Amino acid sequence: VRYFEDMPVGLVEPVDATYLVTEAEIVEMGERWDPQPFHTDREAAAASIFGGLVASSVHLFGITARLGMQGRPKAAVSSLGFRDLQNHAPARPGDELSVSSTVVASRPSQSRPGTGVVTIRAELRNQHGELVFSFENTALYAGRPG
Amino acid sequence: VRYFEDMPVGLVEPVDATYLVTEAEIVEMGERWDPQPFHTDREAAAASIFGGLVASSVHLFGITARLGMQGRPKAAVSSLGFRDLQNHAPARPGDELSVSSTVVASRPSQSRPGTGVVTIRAELRNQHGELVFSFENTALYAGRPG
Repeated sequence: VRYFEDMPVGLVEPVDATYLVTEAEIVEMGERWDPQPFHTDREAAAASIFGGLVASSVHLFGITARLGMQGRPKAAVSSLGFRDLQNHAPARPGDELSVSSTVVASRPSQSRPGTGVVTIRAELRNQHGELVFSFENTALYAGRPG
Repeated sequence: VRYFEDMPVGLVEPVDATYLVTEAEIVEMGERWDPQPFHTDREAAAASIFGGLVASSVHLFGITARLGMQGRPKAAVSSLGFRDLQNHAPARPGDELSVSSTVVASRPSQSRPGTGVVTIRAELRNQHGELVFSFENTALYAGRPG
């Protein structure tokens, strides 16, 4: 388990796992959480600015979170928020996505001794290395026991 | 349909619909996208800082997006990103959530004539009126036709 002390600024953590985006899941997540034509309707999506179905931001946020969890486990106590969720290139059916995380800020918590506040920038890329989605996640982590 | 010109700064759009958070869906969304004990394991969650199961940020992001879509339809062309996703009070099984949206910025697009860039602050509240989750969403909207 990675504790607060194990996450210094500059630490880069690529994750070996990849995530295959399917048309079925784009549509399912779109219908469930973000029912816009370019997520749910193949023909309407073809006529949209994207020229075809693209994954919703909710879907990409989920994929990034899930891939991030497949790296070394972290002693997260509570999320403190996310900044700057950005859509870069669209994610389309058949894309294979991977995530890389970089620690961009780290400090001991003032209010909760023995814990620390860490900000991680997560980047989701496709099989061509293009940046698809990114955000910064700030969370409270437990310090190393003892 | 609400076009760019129909979304001036200060426009507040409450949505009539509410969303019931269930334990089953907290666990399902947690296992699928954010497998941390306070989202997936009732006993471990009881021992966590939250004292019980709480909805993941992916889940709350989805609920906010979906409730937002149940207001008057908007002529969205493309998302330009989200800022400041914040967890305020936790969302627990049985909570009934509602959303309210406020336009906080609006300008014509420089690069795409006939469209505009609008930033909306979305606030998700529970049945007690407590703020649960919030973010700002910037997107490109089509202008009124003709």
